[in-house]
Amino acid sequence: MKIYGDHQSGNCYKIALVCALLEIEHEWIPVDILAGQTRTAEFLQRNPNGKIPLLELDDGRTLSESNAIINYLAAGTSLLPADRFDQAKVQQWQFFEQYSHEPYIAVARFIAKYLGLPEARRAEYEAKQDGGYKALAVMERQLQQSSFLAGNMLTTADVSLYAYTHVADEGGFELNDYPAVQTWIARIKQQPGYVSMPG
Amino acid sequence: MKIYGDHQSGNCYKIALVCALLEIEHEWIPVDILAGQTRTAEFLQRNPNGKIPLLELDDGRTLSESNAIINYLAAGTSLLPADRFDQAKVQQWQFFEQYSHEPYIAVARFIAKYLGLPEARRAEYEAKQDGGYKALAVMERQLQQSSFLAGNMLTTADVSLYAYTHVADEGGFELNDYPAVQTWIARIKQQPGYVSMPG
Repeated sequence: MKIYGDHQSGNCYKIALVCALLEIEHEWIPVDILAGQTRTAEFLQRNPNGKIPLLELDDGRTLSESNAIINYLAAGTSLLPADRFDQAKVQQWQFFEQYSHEPYIAVARFIAKYLGLPEARRAEYEAKQDGGYKALAVMERQLQQSSFLAGNMLTTADVSLYAYTHVADEGGFELNDYPAVQTWIARIKQQPGYVSMPG
Repeated sequence: MKIYGDHQSGNCYKIALVCALLEIEHEWIPVDILAGQTRTAEFLQRNPNGKIPLLELDDGRTLSESNAIINYLAAGTSLLPADRFDQAKVQQWQFFEQYSHEPYIAVARFIAKYLGLPEARRAEYEAKQDGGYKALAVMERQLQQSSFLAGNMLTTADVSLYAYTHVADEGGFELNDYPAVQTWIARIKQQPGYVSMPG
């Protein structure tokens, strides 16, 4: 299987981390977003939405959206519970990530780290702070009650939220007031097979 | 089971539609967002993220995020394929909905229909148009190839995208250039058990 991605993107790192934790062999094909490589006709043929990461199976079928990809890869493993309610709980956290977390924390990080916080986008960057801290507070509340987001086992929900939370400082977010989030980050770093995101 | 929701919210309508299609009995508890009923201490106890819809099982467990809820309700039925790749494809479309569709089409509709398109939010409303049309184009491309988004069977992916697409005109979006989307909307309205969204 091929994975089209950029190691510095948190959404792509989710796939790399799941492949490492589950020892899944794959070919990684680097794609440079800023150079327009997700907007070429060839790439749009694979993903009409023009985004990475993208999974391509050996038979040519493709799958986009980071959280859908990691749930596909983790099906039948310890990272994805078999129980119907537990699986829905994992998805709850992943939809929370894409709607209430990523648009604040990942976008603030993108503006600061990739674009160098240009003046033209400073207001947008600052407007992201409230939503980001609100998302962290929701995570903190859960992680005060359980070791991982969907209970006491590591699941793909943790991978999804970990990707941008553990580099939230690059988007201007301080984790001092979120001790359970900090402990959870340390816990994930200790998982067998863990790989870090290239800096 | 109880469902906390607002029938005029597309995200809540997804649950009502799945319950109707699958004939799932439930108690609907109306929640008024604009009156602050998702921000009360009692509601935040049920969903710390302060959003509807929210599912509460008879044993007290809760589930939030519309797409996670409908996948939970549809598990084991014809609305959710059993195959691992097919399930991931359904999720792909649902994550697309929450990240690349809802923030444009649903938010434009919210500003226009719920808030009455106030001058202070006109620029934001207009900025939503490009992203909304891009999402419709991605859907059109798929629906030129298959009757439903994840293949030739109606799935929860269709319910997720249908919710705001079929009222996209209320957010200022014209569907004239998206004939396959229009046909798909008509196809969904013909499903046995279909219920419409209260106007």
